[in-house]
Amino acid sequence: MELLIATHNTHKIEEIQNIIGPDHTVKSLADYDLYDEIIEDGNTFEENALIKAKYCFEKTGIPSLGDDSGMVVEALGGRPGIYSARYAGNHDFDKNIDKVLREMDGEKNRRACFTTVLCFYNGKEYYFHGEMWGKILNTKTGEHGFGYDPVFVPEGENITYAEMSLEDKNKISHRKKAIENFLDYNRIFKIW
Amino acid sequence: MELLIATHNTHKIEEIQNIIGPDHTVKSLADYDLYDEIIEDGNTFEENALIKAKYCFEKTGIPSLGDDSGMVVEALGGRPGIYSARYAGNHDFDKNIDKVLREMDGEKNRRACFTTVLCFYNGKEYYFHGEMWGKILNTKTGEHGFGYDPVFVPEGENITYAEMSLEDKNKISHRKKAIENFLDYNRIFKIW
Repeated sequence: MELLIATHNTHKIEEIQNIIGPDHTVKSLADYDLYDEIIEDGNTFEENALIKAKYCFEKTGIPSLGDDSGMVVEALGGRPGIYSARYAGNHDFDKNIDKVLREMDGEKNRRACFTTVLCFYNGKEYYFHGEMWGKILNTKTGEHGFGYDPVFVPEGENITYAEMSLEDKNKISHRKKAIENFLDYNRIFKIW
Repeated sequence: MELLIATHNTHKIEEIQNIIGPDHTVKSLADYDLYDEIIEDGNTFEENALIKAKYCFEKTGIPSLGDDSGMVVEALGGRPGIYSARYAGNHDFDKNIDKVLREMDGEKNRRACFTTVLCFYNGKEYYFHGEMWGKILNTKTGEHGFGYDPVFVPEGENITYAEMSLEDKNKISHRKKAIENFLDYNRIFKIW
């Protein structure tokens, strides 16, 4: 069964393919040259996930999954939140992380939550969540993953997402939980 | 904090108040005399939950929670699903259960899933799920609960929902899981 993931982010595609497994084919926007037209101007993760999924389904007719994810930092009142990928520079995570660390300078409360909202769209819309609480370090550590992974230590762990292999991150991550919720729901409702 | 639950179903209100706890006030449609105007003509649990929550928020300005729930029976191709409360008679669960049992007569596969989809609406929409797999009995057993509770034995249990006290059902139920998902999410995003 084919699923179109509404992203050009090869890290996201790789994570999702790894979680969903080899029985299903995950396609990306690159396979359809669609990305540049998507304008993510929603006010919530939900709205942005829907914008992406709906756009892809309407262009291709293939059931589509929009993933909007980000880092919600308690001491920053929830920022960067839906602006995670463009907090300082568009998909420039060196700059984005640096801005967060600067704003967190001297802050004792390091609590943060990595969040994924998925919207599955096949003419109707369905939403799934995954969250992982953890803490923000003062410096970047680790070479794997993407985004804020080098400064995020999930609860119950003592290394960052970026210090984990893809397989290890995918056992526990916010994105893993969201996709499991989607797959559990699909076992009942056969939406995909 | 006040939350308007888009239902007249006193069982649902009681369950939700019990799960959310005494720190928050749960209001029902009866407090605002709104119910008769809601037309649940969605094609999914999600659409119906949104219709209810949005209607209540727009009438009152109070953050509202729409609960659309039902029983998805595997051998019946997912029925009664969104038609659970009106499968044979509108909110007449003696008739509704009898129709399901009649259709399941002689059927070996008794697997079913009790599902809740919540839509929280405060001008923006958010969705939360809870599911409980189990099996359908051949006869009604137990006096508690409501809906299909007398014929549903949740996985890992050997009595029906209707044989459990409200407190015991609320420790494990599909509705409990959905509300916990809402409350977990609210801890991060403070939507309520």
